[in-house]
Amino acid sequence: MKNMKFIALFLILMIPWGTMAGKRQINMADLGVTPQTPDCTPAIVKCLQECKDDKNVTILFEKGTYHFFPDFGKDKYCFVSNNDEGLKRTIFLLEQVQNMTIDGQGANFIFHGFSNPFVIYDSKNVTFKNFSIDYVRPFHSEAIIIQNNSDGIDVMIPESFPYRINNGTLVFTDGKSKEERQTTVSREIVYPYGSLLEFDTNKRETAFMARDYYLGNTPLVAKDLGNRKVRLFLKDLKGTVGNTLVFASANRNYPGFTVSDSENLRFENITIFHSGGMGIVGQRTHSVIVESCKVTPSNGRMISCTADATHFSNCTGKIELSHCIFENQMDDATNIHGIYVQIARQVAPDEVFVQLKHTQQLGFDFLQKGVPVEFVQGLSLITKGNAIVLEAERINKDFTRVKLSEPLPEGIKVGDAIGELRKFPVIHIHDNYIGKNRARGMLLNCRGKTIVENNIFHSPGAAILFEGDANFWFEQGGVNDCTIRNNVFDNCLFGVWGEAIIDVQAGIKEQRDVSRYNKNIKVYNNTFRVFDDVYLLHAYGVENMEWKNNKRVMTNDYPSVRQRDSLYKIEYCDDIKISEP
Amino acid sequence: MKNMKFIALFLILMIPWGTMAGKRQINMADLGVTPQTPDCTPAIVKCLQECKDDKNVTILFEKGTYHFFPDFGKDKYCFVSNNDEGLKRTIFLLEQVQNMTIDGQGANFIFHGFSNPFVIYDSKNVTFKNFSIDYVRPFHSEAIIIQNNSDGIDVMIPESFPYRINNGTLVFTDGKSKEERQTTVSREIVYPYGSLLEFDTNKRETAFMARDYYLGNTPLVAKDLGNRKVRLFLKDLKGTVGNTLVFASANRNYPGFTVSDSENLRFENITIFHSGGMGIVGQRTHSVIVESCKVTPSNGRMISCTADATHFSNCTGKIELSHCIFENQMDDATNIHGIYVQIARQVAPDEVFVQLKHTQQLGFDFLQKGVPVEFVQGLSLITKGNAIVLEAERINKDFTRVKLSEPLPEGIKVGDAIGELRKFPVIHIHDNYIGKNRARGMLLNCRGKTIVENNIFHSPGAAILFEGDANFWFEQGGVNDCTIRNNVFDNCLFGVWGEAIIDVQAGIKEQRDVSRYNKNIKVYNNTFRVFDDVYLLHAYGVENMEWKNNKRVMTNDYPSVRQRDSLYKIEYCDDIKISEP
Repeated sequence: MKNMKFIALFLILMIPWGTMAGKRQINMADLGVTPQTPDCTPAIVKCLQECKDDKNVTILFEKGTYHFFPDFGKDKYCFVSNNDEGLKRTIFLLEQVQNMTIDGQGANFIFHGFSNPFVIYDSKNVTFKNFSIDYVRPFHSEAIIIQNNSDGIDVMIPESFPYRINNGTLVFTDGKSKEERQTTVSREIVYPYGSLLEFDTNKRETAFMARDYYLGNTPLVAKDLGNRKVRLFLKDLKGTVGNTLVFASANRNYPGFTVSDSENLRFENITIFHSGGMGIVGQRTHSVIVESCKVTPSNGRMISCTADATHFSNCTGKIELSHCIFENQMDDATNIHGIYVQIARQVAPDEVFVQLKHTQQLGFDFLQKGVPVEFVQGLSLITKGNAIVLEAERINKDFTRVKLSEPLPEGIKVGDAIGELRKFPVIHIHDNYIGKNRARGMLLNCRGKTIVENNIFHSPGAAILFEGDANFWFEQGGVNDCTIRNNVFDNCLFGVWGEAIIDVQAGIKEQRDVSRYNKNIKVYNNTFRVFDDVYLLHAYGVENMEWKNNKRVMTNDYPSVRQRDSLYKIEYCDDIKISEP
Repeated sequence: MKNMKFIALFLILMIPWGTMAGKRQINMADLGVTPQTPDCTPAIVKCLQECKDDKNVTILFEKGTYHFFPDFGKDKYCFVSNNDEGLKRTIFLLEQVQNMTIDGQGANFIFHGFSNPFVIYDSKNVTFKNFSIDYVRPFHSEAIIIQNNSDGIDVMIPESFPYRINNGTLVFTDGKSKEERQTTVSREIVYPYGSLLEFDTNKRETAFMARDYYLGNTPLVAKDLGNRKVRLFLKDLKGTVGNTLVFASANRNYPGFTVSDSENLRFENITIFHSGGMGIVGQRTHSVIVESCKVTPSNGRMISCTADATHFSNCTGKIELSHCIFENQMDDATNIHGIYVQIARQVAPDEVFVQLKHTQQLGFDFLQKGVPVEFVQGLSLITKGNAIVLEAERINKDFTRVKLSEPLPEGIKVGDAIGELRKFPVIHIHDNYIGKNRARGMLLNCRGKTIVENNIFHSPGAAILFEGDANFWFEQGGVNDCTIRNNVFDNCLFGVWGEAIIDVQAGIKEQRDVSRYNKNIKVYNNTFRVFDDVYLLHAYGVENMEWKNNKRVMTNDYPSVRQRDSLYKIEYCDDIKISEP
């Protein structure tokens, strides 16, 4: 008996892999990973490597704070839709994984330096739950406005955003700059910024009617005034003393979760305090559920993610966002769309070279043999015909040669676009809070059944935007069955990003009289809390819209800046039925 | 008969692939590629693709100027020693090619925009001959100094270097900047600069005793004075009016020829007018012959390559540079060395994690199973033992886990280095002109038999430098059999890069009394034309050196700035025999 006990104990000690309900269960604590571990990266890389052929694994952390440094992460070159491509140093790299759950059980994951927390490729049935992610030094920077000058402003930069003045320009750093011998190939670790935006320090949202200052990717001319006070020289730059000036990250290299070419992803009770790019980005992926998650800043910061909270390109299946908070991110809460390629050259009636045009869509290879596509006029957004891809030869990240089952239809020529006619996903967005972020709430650009209900929007721009174009962003959109009901639009459009709380900005430049890119939109039973005569609706190029039982409630929460005779701006539409309560 | 002629003509028209002396011969003109072709890239990509399984091909161009745009080039991620890694848009991509000759027959290849002209991987017996390469817009920029101010200088920027002042900073562009809608993800095409260096406009070489101004990778604060005159604000920046200020490229992304993991490369009568990185860089390659080639600027520019003319890392076989001109490149004419990794962590007596330390050596995977290595003390450069690599597991571009045949020897610990003990190449450098470039002539850091003879050096720094260290550049060096004879050192060291015309700067920081990193150097029958008491020799940590029959001739070509009692500075050496004529 004693021997048996000893053997059992020995087995337990030897095999940290437990088994529970048919699933292999890995307790990271058994692998020596605890909040005391100085760098958890090597252990998690090893663990993922060792269980990569298992098809049913749950990885458990104990509650606590864990630190991840980039040094021993994995490298993977990723083209990430609407983020920046690159060789991504990745902490949790999941490739060809099946039936995996990573359960933090309340853990906080803190990332140091430049790395991508989670990258998932070619995987199925993956669940992330019960943890948060954050960075010690965020990818953006912040400062408090202390004075307006005729040629710029003075700011005070908190210690959490290290900086230095280099030859008269402001550079944000990791604070570890050491005196090193300089050479022609010296590189400093910097956090480049590409634009500026003022936030209201008290309300913790974009300042009333603040606009972006685009810097053209050069640092600001600046002068150190001592005691972390800095004078910024930029013509027309003004701000309210006491407000927060956000230096937006110039790049989107470090999304929180990058999901590509995968199936059935679940995010449950995940908090993204920060990411250097989007929070969750899914591309060419079938079904993503985001439930009870939060995107929200930590440590007194104004900004959470440095781009959209979530974003989905050329996805299928179901996309559900529910019971989430998406706040203070530097771009929209979500955008669900496809990607258009532009026809760059025609080499035969049925053969073309197509080009990905938006630099953050390069390498997005959705054209594969057998894929059904549509031909779309670049300026009118009118679909002129369909075909099947017979051959797709990738030339490089920009260009693909495509042979099609049909010749280019009448009216389609070089400069026009091709989009994928996949099985568009069903969208259900419900019971979320969205607000205080830069720009819009939701960009709905999906032709699958779309329901947006029971949400609270407090967006400085349009709460809901129908966009899509084939001449600037090259985002394929055009809803076909969209219902917006039982939402509260709480003082939206206190900023500059949009024309109406529910806004249609499809990029129709030609044939406005006939192009109807968005169709079949129902807006029922919503409450619009407004502080002035903001447009509730701007419809443009829409066919069949029903607006009923929506309530408008006046507030005094912001100064009135718009006086109008109508709350609805309708242009180039058919069958718009508006009934006021 | 008529029919026969017709058939023969038909065959010629149908088969552009000729056959000559058992080799397949491709005339690019037969493929429609002429100097009138607007963009030759698609044709050359197609041609290389179609003949990639041939093992014996000559590709011929007709004399003339050919244009290559990046759009339809190939993408390949390259880690290039001492240049910048990245996804390289490549025009001529040769992978797994054998017995190929590309003969330009006097052609000029002009590259447009951002691309790598030639990238060669895993190939054997490849010859490039009789063509030149150049770029329409070089990766560096130049300006004429027109006035000194108390806080900087005024310059006049020629039209060939487009620029703009962006929010008070100087940005070099491609001149095609168009008014585009700006967004948070806007990117402008810029040519970033990282340092400044003054050149003598008349002598067409670095200005007398000019030094580099390192900018820390931010643009200069600047003011447009109109008519392409710009005021630059940089404390201490001074220059001679009329001289040329060179804005050195911040990155080395676009070497002319990148040769990796290949065998038997020949360059004959190739002229590199410009490259955005090194001219020819060879890594882990067996035998490279560079004969009758030129690195020289075009179009009145001051600069040819923006880095070293040639550079060889961890090569074997033979390296021969002969009858070449290497001038006006922004760094040394050559550097032949190995790469050290640093021991980052020891996990067993015979198992370590090693790290590539220099950011331009990342991804340089020379540690493979079966490779013999040496253990070297990082600060003394003393080799303490050898071993064979039993396992090498690449963690990422920085780190590799290595299991060795022997435990780490006594005296080797974390922070020390490991280098490859390959069959070091035989080096023969003869009958070249080297000069007018930034920095040094030749960096000789190879343990194979090295002969440098019949060259003319006119280097602003040391003409010949023995370097190597395991604590800053991590370049493995240490000659073992080196002869320098019958060269003319013509007014060298008119600049700041070095202590002596023949200079030893091995990075020995500890145990100077015993560390002898460079050995067996003979310096015979050379002529030193000098304008002052410059050191002819600085020997440091050297064992066994013979200096005889060297002639010193005084000139008045530059102002005398050094008065000394001895022309030889000898420190920590054994067996140095100097006999003056």
